[in-house]
Amino acid sequence: MKKSYLEMSKEELLQLKAALQEDFKTEEAKGHSLNMARGKPGRAQLELAMPMLDILNSQSDMNTILGNDTRNYGDLDGIGECRRLMADMMEVQKDNVIVCGNSSLNIMYDTIARSMAFGVNGSTPWFKLDSVKFLCPVPGYDRHFQITEQFGIEMIPIPMDSNGPDMDLVEKYVNNDASVKGIWCVPKYSNPAGISYSDEVVLRFAHLKPAAEDFRIYWDNAYCIHHLYKDIQDKILNILDECTKAGNPDMVYIFASTSKISFPGSGVSAIATSEKNLDYILSKMTVQTIGHDKINQLRHVRFFNGIDGLHEHMKKHADILRPKFEAVLEELDNELAGLDIGTWVKPRGGYFISFNAMPGCAKSIVAKCRQLGVILTAAGATYPYGNDPQDSNIRIAPSFPSPEEMAVASKVFVLCVKLASVEKLLENK
Amino acid sequence: MKKSYLEMSKEELLQLKAALQEDFKTEEAKGHSLNMARGKPGRAQLELAMPMLDILNSQSDMNTILGNDTRNYGDLDGIGECRRLMADMMEVQKDNVIVCGNSSLNIMYDTIARSMAFGVNGSTPWFKLDSVKFLCPVPGYDRHFQITEQFGIEMIPIPMDSNGPDMDLVEKYVNNDASVKGIWCVPKYSNPAGISYSDEVVLRFAHLKPAAEDFRIYWDNAYCIHHLYKDIQDKILNILDECTKAGNPDMVYIFASTSKISFPGSGVSAIATSEKNLDYILSKMTVQTIGHDKINQLRHVRFFNGIDGLHEHMKKHADILRPKFEAVLEELDNELAGLDIGTWVKPRGGYFISFNAMPGCAKSIVAKCRQLGVILTAAGATYPYGNDPQDSNIRIAPSFPSPEEMAVASKVFVLCVKLASVEKLLENK
Repeated sequence: MKKSYLEMSKEELLQLKAALQEDFKTEEAKGHSLNMARGKPGRAQLELAMPMLDILNSQSDMNTILGNDTRNYGDLDGIGECRRLMADMMEVQKDNVIVCGNSSLNIMYDTIARSMAFGVNGSTPWFKLDSVKFLCPVPGYDRHFQITEQFGIEMIPIPMDSNGPDMDLVEKYVNNDASVKGIWCVPKYSNPAGISYSDEVVLRFAHLKPAAEDFRIYWDNAYCIHHLYKDIQDKILNILDECTKAGNPDMVYIFASTSKISFPGSGVSAIATSEKNLDYILSKMTVQTIGHDKINQLRHVRFFNGIDGLHEHMKKHADILRPKFEAVLEELDNELAGLDIGTWVKPRGGYFISFNAMPGCAKSIVAKCRQLGVILTAAGATYPYGNDPQDSNIRIAPSFPSPEEMAVASKVFVLCVKLASVEKLLENK
Repeated sequence: MKKSYLEMSKEELLQLKAALQEDFKTEEAKGHSLNMARGKPGRAQLELAMPMLDILNSQSDMNTILGNDTRNYGDLDGIGECRRLMADMMEVQKDNVIVCGNSSLNIMYDTIARSMAFGVNGSTPWFKLDSVKFLCPVPGYDRHFQITEQFGIEMIPIPMDSNGPDMDLVEKYVNNDASVKGIWCVPKYSNPAGISYSDEVVLRFAHLKPAAEDFRIYWDNAYCIHHLYKDIQDKILNILDECTKAGNPDMVYIFASTSKISFPGSGVSAIATSEKNLDYILSKMTVQTIGHDKINQLRHVRFFNGIDGLHEHMKKHADILRPKFEAVLEELDNELAGLDIGTWVKPRGGYFISFNAMPGCAKSIVAKCRQLGVILTAAGATYPYGNDPQDSNIRIAPSFPSPEEMAVASKVFVLCVKLASVEKLLENK
């Protein structure tokens, strides 16, 4: 059993620090160049979808099942068979889905932009309001927070535990404050915590009684089928169904894409919501564009050949990703367990491992890693305005480097965690 | 020589009307179903780009010249070689170009939306202003007008002649009214008039002295290489160069796409403007999306293999489109010349023929054509708010039907023009 750093004397800490500094110099001399900053698929994952490029060729029938030519203008809401595929993936009905371009982030941005400019289904445009607020479960996805920040929306952090956001707090805000217009959620294998919302949390979401008629849940189901294991897979309740049952049929927008299934940047994205919401969105979207890339939609439909094909494909991704996650987790377990200088959750899917360092250490750890050539997401990025009040949370993205590189990067990471923690503890000795 | 309708007596007109009504019944009995409403490429044109689908396959090198993997995230502003291709097409420098998604209309929409929300390079967001106005050369592109209408921007029609917009009026508004923030232009083979701006017009644009610092020219060069003939091709002055020379380097946004070169909906689009403007756009766009479809950019680059390849490809389009335009023009010449009931211009490129009926006849003509099964763009659509004060302009889109169908549709069209004109003339007899 290792000795907790918290129980060490000043003398012991100083001795440890000296040893860690030696290790630090050794690693520095190696000149690492590794990146764990972003949830980017690795090369082997990209190879998985290469046969998709053979699916359509100059001899292909380019018509949809209904006989529409995918090469020409039309089908603003996406071709029927791709709406079906995305609906199956998102576990909703086809009529509740619009397939868009290559980026679900872009759909989210446009959804916020549209609400700012025009309101939601006839409500007052948010630009005309003195105050617009969003709830932001933390730690969360930095790009969500950047969208609301860009539009000057006030962000309120909501703590998360292993069941999801603190629903007492969510209910307090949503049900009482009409300036609260939304909440950002990554409900499954969350970014970055890797947790999935419990049934109770989803049900409490569905039964919210928003003070604002134009309050919506922004349900970014980015990792809906992105499991790491075959035997243990998280399952969350269907938020659209539950909202409908609870008398809140229009309260949720669900977003998803194939960016981490086919190709990042060349996938298809979709929004799922009530038909009433879709009608409003389409009434604006029809002025924004004539339509999205339907040839790419057809390519996806024919390649995956239905939801079963999607799931089969995701197993191949899991086989590539799992060893990378395990390389990190093994190192964390081996090196940090029992030291009381950090906590982490072992995720069953998604793209991230969330590490909580001792308060006041995250920035120092990220800086030290950078000094050793290992790039991490900026400390604080997982909080609105980049401000982690505890300076504790670090998002680790193991997907891009190889498992071997991940092992090296993890060694560097734990070294920096140890050194930063010792330095922090010595401040108060 | 045919007798002008204007010179006919009531008796002659009544006789003519009876004969035309007989023809109308004959055509009605045929049950036509033809569409000349939108600038949609025809099937044969779509076939031209089918070999593009063979360009990338599972064995392809997917890296850019710089070694970036097009399959992964990155290159927000587009891959370098596609920026070069679009720059060459738009006759600007690569550094002045961002390549975006599949729709230049979407770029225009987002550019307006961004200006509404955030202003232009630091100016006051338009939403905070009491009045925002756009100048709209007429007849113009209905989808431009729909964008500005959706955002509540006041649209001021500006008459056009065969040289372009009435520049006296443009200068009067732009140089004196700080609420005038933009002007919609289709400078080459304009939609729908088919005319190209004269050098004098372009120069007067470049030398505007806008009262508003955030005034921009929205230069939709949709038909920049869309010639119909090999020997007579319009050439317009380079607006970005001329603006720079005139001390207005940031005053113009240029838009273009390959929607009518490769595939509508599956092409690539681009914006060209000053680097200062691009920096500002990218500072917002980086929150809106992680990037556009770079695999499709690579597909376009490798298929067209440079600007010469683009031009060669456009010759094939011209060969398909020319007979369709000629079928309409021949019918107009044969049947309407000398009757004094309509004028039209023979375009040398683009996608439309603009027909000016006798005042007060456009709606009637379009309705009659619809009754005979020939769908035209709604009368008035070429004017802001769908309001053609003369009720005169009709946009004919000859691209989608076959030449044989176009011949039939044109016969129907001239019949309806004649009948509507006779009815109008009889009102005042």
